[in-house]
Amino acid sequence: MAEIGVGMLGYAFMGKAHANGYRKISYMTWPPPLEPKLVAIAGRNEEAVAEAARRYGFETHVTDWRALVEDDRIGLFDNSGPNNLHAEPTIAAAEAGKHVICEKPLGRDATESYDTWQRVQAAGVKHMCAFNYRFVPAVRLAREILESGALGEIRHFRGAYLQEWGTTDAAVWRFDKEAAGSGALGDLGAHVIDLARYLVGEIAEVSAMTATFAPGREVDDAFETAVRFEGGAVGTIESSRFAQGRKNALTWEINGSEGSLRFDLERLNELEHCEGNEGFRRILVSEADHPFWEFWWPQGHIIGWEHTFVHEIHHLLTAIRDDTDVAPHGATLEDGYRAAEVCDAILRSAERGARETVSYR
Amino acid sequence: MAEIGVGMLGYAFMGKAHANGYRKISYMTWPPPLEPKLVAIAGRNEEAVAEAARRYGFETHVTDWRALVEDDRIGLFDNSGPNNLHAEPTIAAAEAGKHVICEKPLGRDATESYDTWQRVQAAGVKHMCAFNYRFVPAVRLAREILESGALGEIRHFRGAYLQEWGTTDAAVWRFDKEAAGSGALGDLGAHVIDLARYLVGEIAEVSAMTATFAPGREVDDAFETAVRFEGGAVGTIESSRFAQGRKNALTWEINGSEGSLRFDLERLNELEHCEGNEGFRRILVSEADHPFWEFWWPQGHIIGWEHTFVHEIHHLLTAIRDDTDVAPHGATLEDGYRAAEVCDAILRSAERGARETVSYR
Amino acid sequence: MAEIGVGMLGYAFMGKAHANGYRKISYMTWPPPLEPKLVAIAGRNEEAVAEAARRYGFETHVTDWRALVEDDRIGLFDNSGPNNLHAEPTIAAAEAGKHVICEKPLGRDATESYDTWQRVQAAGVKHMCAFNYRFVPAVRLAREILESGALGEIRHFRGAYLQEWGTTDAAVWRFDKEAAGSGALGDLGAHVIDLARYLVGEIAEVSAMTATFAPGREVDDAFETAVRFEGGAVGTIESSRFAQGRKNALTWEINGSEGSLRFDLERLNELEHCEGNEGFRRILVSEADHPFWEFWWPQGHIIGWEHTFVHEIHHLLTAIRDDTDVAPHGATLEDGYRAAEVCDAILRSAERGARETVSYR
Amino acid sequence: MAEIGVGMLGYAFMGKAHANGYRKISYMTWPPPLEPKLVAIAGRNEEAVAEAARRYGFETHVTDWRALVEDDRIGLFDNSGPNNLHAEPTIAAAEAGKHVICEKPLGRDATESYDTWQRVQAAGVKHMCAFNYRFVPAVRLAREILESGALGEIRHFRGAYLQEWGTTDAAVWRFDKEAAGSGALGDLGAHVIDLARYLVGEIAEVSAMTATFAPGREVDDAFETAVRFEGGAVGTIESSRFAQGRKNALTWEINGSEGSLRFDLERLNELEHCEGNEGFRRILVSEADHPFWEFWWPQGHIIGWEHTFVHEIHHLLTAIRDDTDVAPHGATLEDGYRAAEVCDAILRSAERGARETVSYR
Repeated sequence: MAEIGVGMLGYAFMGKAHANGYRKISYMTWPPPLEPKLVAIAGRNEEAVAEAARRYGFETHVTDWRALVEDDRIGLFDNSGPNNLHAEPTIAAAEAGKHVICEKPLGRDATESYDTWQRVQAAGVKHMCAFNYRFVPAVRLAREILESGALGEIRHFRGAYLQEWGTTDAAVWRFDKEAAGSGALGDLGAHVIDLARYLVGEIAEVSAMTATFAPGREVDDAFETAVRFEGGAVGTIESSRFAQGRKNALTWEINGSEGSLRFDLERLNELEHCEGNEGFRRILVSEADHPFWEFWWPQGHIIGWEHTFVHEIHHLLTAIRDDTDVAPHGATLEDGYRAAEVCDAILRSAERGARETVSYR
Repeated sequence: MAEIGVGMLGYAFMGKAHANGYRKISYMTWPPPLEPKLVAIAGRNEEAVAEAARRYGFETHVTDWRALVEDDRIGLFDNSGPNNLHAEPTIAAAEAGKHVICEKPLGRDATESYDTWQRVQAAGVKHMCAFNYRFVPAVRLAREILESGALGEIRHFRGAYLQEWGTTDAAVWRFDKEAAGSGALGDLGAHVIDLARYLVGEIAEVSAMTATFAPGREVDDAFETAVRFEGGAVGTIESSRFAQGRKNALTWEINGSEGSLRFDLERLNELEHCEGNEGFRRILVSEADHPFWEFWWPQGHIIGWEHTFVHEIHHLLTAIRDDTDVAPHGATLEDGYRAAEVCDAILRSAERGARETVSYR
Repeated sequence: MAEIGVGMLGYAFMGKAHANGYRKISYMTWPPPLEPKLVAIAGRNEEAVAEAARRYGFETHVTDWRALVEDDRIGLFDNSGPNNLHAEPTIAAAEAGKHVICEKPLGRDATESYDTWQRVQAAGVKHMCAFNYRFVPAVRLAREILESGALGEIRHFRGAYLQEWGTTDAAVWRFDKEAAGSGALGDLGAHVIDLARYLVGEIAEVSAMTATFAPGREVDDAFETAVRFEGGAVGTIESSRFAQGRKNALTWEINGSEGSLRFDLERLNELEHCEGNEGFRRILVSEADHPFWEFWWPQGHIIGWEHTFVHEIHHLLTAIRDDTDVAPHGATLEDGYRAAEVCDAILRSAERGARETVSYR
Repeated sequence: MAEIGVGMLGYAFMGKAHANGYRKISYMTWPPPLEPKLVAIAGRNEEAVAEAARRYGFETHVTDWRALVEDDRIGLFDNSGPNNLHAEPTIAAAEAGKHVICEKPLGRDATESYDTWQRVQAAGVKHMCAFNYRFVPAVRLAREILESGALGEIRHFRGAYLQEWGTTDAAVWRFDKEAAGSGALGDLGAHVIDLARYLVGEIAEVSAMTATFAPGREVDDAFETAVRFEGGAVGTIESSRFAQGRKNALTWEINGSEGSLRFDLERLNELEHCEGNEGFRRILVSEADHPFWEFWWPQGHIIGWEHTFVHEIHHLLTAIRDDTDVAPHGATLEDGYRAAEVCDAILRSAERGARETVSYR
């Protein structure tokens, strides 16, 4: 079985999630498209990154990500670092001929995201922006239902990503404008925007507001926006880190002329589908013929959040092995850039108090 | 027991709901604050209104509402007619010294609503705008929880009123701009706006869009808006008549610094309350000490949509009997006017593509 | 419109529910099959029954139910009294030529129930045992689905009726063996048994246990039984007054070879239907073409517990007017008797520690 | 880090689940109590077991489980084979000095289970019966709530394990009496019985029925039983492979004098807790201080069915490393035996038509 050397930047929350993905690929998606070989992991704190290497099974660790770029054994560069370390390392790795996967948001704004996409694209490697929720089986099933035309003409998309930890002291870089770019918008909202684009299509206009509740904080704690899609659907998108009781509630509902779909990430194994006006049917997305389910268990033996990364990495490795497109099911860096344009439009709309048209470079 | 003569304009959907309310007041809210005596009902179609009179037990019927205004036996004028018959009859009845209850939206726009409120107010009678959802036990309980401070500082309100009958041929006046004023906005959205005001407070700003899906229709089929409240909370409000599978889904969620509340009119006997971040608790609002529950049954024996009107009329009759304020739990015509200002701001924002500040005359 | 004089025994919980039914029949089921004329109500406490007469609109009150039997104006005798007042007054009324409706359980045991049925049957009047949950729209819809064969061969019925007020001081007669016959079994379990018979068919065998938790109490606080139906389905039936958090939870689920149905009385407007193994679809039973819905509101405007009595009385009055059978949708006194045989078999099984066959006289 | 050599019997459904557990232990439960070294896997089909060894990372494969018993590198024998291969290999491995974990049901009947337990116990090794649902975080949290006394005196347990694949052609050994011992009872019911014992206590009496729906099948497709616990609680337990729409529905509810708990394996990240009669609160069991959650993700990032095995193996390896008891949180072979006694009592009760007392040797 062909191998691919993996170099990873970052070992915190996302690093753990991605590392678990590579580990499970080897035996749960059998045979794996390519056998991931965990070559090296980079982080600034040597003690911590050394332990991460032992823990996740990387052969070595380094304290400067440039060492990953220079390492010829590495064929795939996995950027699980903070937002301000997305652009430069990802570009450098791509220009060194490595395929890249980069956490979202791609850049801290649309300009940084655009440059990253353009330079990586020019390098001719496979690239993926890690919008992992495209790889929830229920989301993929929703996409299939939508592609079949079963929902008819789409009227509405209402999506939210609500969490409750906005007053925490942890993960401080996420509250730092220089490191993160934005707050709930880029962290949570970008996921909703990507799913809106994946499921319904491009967003044409936004009329938005933002709010910051924590005293002295530079980034948004929440945003709220009305949206209009190019196809004519209208709806709302919001995210907040101040929604008590909402642990990880990425929810969306789509209403079409022939039916509706809805989803809640806190119950990620379930998709609700209303055919016509017959009432919502709860599909426990875990049948042998459901998306990604060939990897897992008999029906009803549900999977968890971490498994989205297994599916995502499987998709990327397959694209690398077969030299096929990452799109449309995988988000490319172009998708990362396009989400960033929507985010920037939301910020402009919130600041100027005017509806903003989303346009692309 | 003291009686009050009731004259009603309209015998369709709202007329049936109000008539049922008066009938049940007499024996379910025992002893009733005042015994409603159904004096006369008005409608343009004589055959239909005559049958309505027989059916609901009105002593007589008339084909011109002015006959109600002139009838000295009538102490309470109930306007259950279409929107374009709200202002003139309500004002005339009030100026003839009758207490008035008028269906929502109060007027077809803020100006008409303002005039109606001002003239009725000047007449010195009790007045109520029939925002009946304030009288859902779960909504009243939510208000009590909010008043207790248990939710802390309010961060978010997200409300929607979704229905699915937008392609129907029935109830045509609701699609006629001259008769209705607006579409989903005044019909459904006004309810959300009133509850937002009742539960969270005044709305300061809106950034909105509207959509009309049915070809040739003059009024909005849906609207979407970001909102900011005077108290600093932000959120979204929307309504649509094109949401397949959503039968009568007036839903809202409120997030505060100390907890959250949520509600769905399709399960109107339930309120979900999250204290701190402990998870949502489903309260079946049907205990002996829950709001309005002194009128009904042992716990768990749920009530229906129609009972909101019983509570509403009981509240109004009590205010009339005791000469007490309809506010704050009952919506007055001032509340009707204020909701109309928000609706107008939403339409202006949608048309101008700019954030609008809500201001009152 | 033809009238029917109603005489009622009892004015407490069930009396209030039945009285409300008669009152609403007149205008909500339009035109009513027969116009109920509330002639007289009987109760032992004169002050209380006099107020009940004023409240519910009975022309007179009496303190001896025999006065109802002798009153020629009364064509329908409504027995809403306690269990120990079911047999004698119901028989007397029937033998005086009045149609009868009697609350459940019909008698305190199968023998008393059998005698009541036989003598009333012999009198040639219409008779109904007030198993009102047959008249929940979702239950009727379930019956229609079952009759259509859409569930295939029935494999399982699991039903429970759970409440939580077993430690209360109220409604003391329900804890008195002489007055009530049994405890949770006759009060709650009988409802489940009747629905099991209505939906699945006759119960052939039971293997049961009972429990009494409250010290010194004579009647069962709970029972648990495995059941086998004549058609081959197996399942469980239970009821308890000691299930904290369960307010009025009559729940059942039916599994057939081609699908499943489930129901919870706390959400009585909803029926869940799984076609094949496609997942449960939530039907909000409130469409224009759903059972009983011609009486009510647009879709999604839900009804309450009390409305089951409106449907039940409407059914009975129609059978009286048209001289048609109360069965199969209405429970007759034979159904009351048959439920009592199952209850007795459960008690025998619990006492003897052996499986009991249900047999009928 | 100390290692432990693992030898596994079986590579099908359970083998895959256990193998995944060992693989994840190494990096997700960090540092692992002992580092599992996958020495050898046994299966009769050489081609299949050879591929399983490659897939899951076992150093070698064998076609006779006796080779595992004789392999000195193996310190832990994992029996993931079919029921008729539980007793002999497990006993042999223990008597060769290896710790053992054996899939449930322990034996095909109580006698076989008893012998297995006794002989393994006598060998002085650590032993575990793989009732993995004890290791669902929500189940452990329920146990903690129960141990705290928060539910008061326990009145009821109602548990079911419902699946729908009873007509399938797959996994044929599960329908073979010689290989499986029983049908839904040992396969599914044993899980419910173990959780009943873990959460509420020993079962004293059963009154049961069984059913076989598939023509010619030797084992039960479903069973239904009333149960009485030694502590006085009563309830029902059932399982079926013929419940359409129920994918993997292990559900239970416990009612105590001070509150209730309920659970559904199809939503295994959730526990519902009613304190007093205040309504059920949905706890998304995923907080940093929730059971097992130190291994995983931020709150709301849910885990899957497979993770129960990670927790289970972690528990066992810790007991081996520290020489501590597997009980009470881990099920020992004694627990496996006790569950088998309850299963046998259910079969006897079903056959004899009499209530059976559960007694232990």
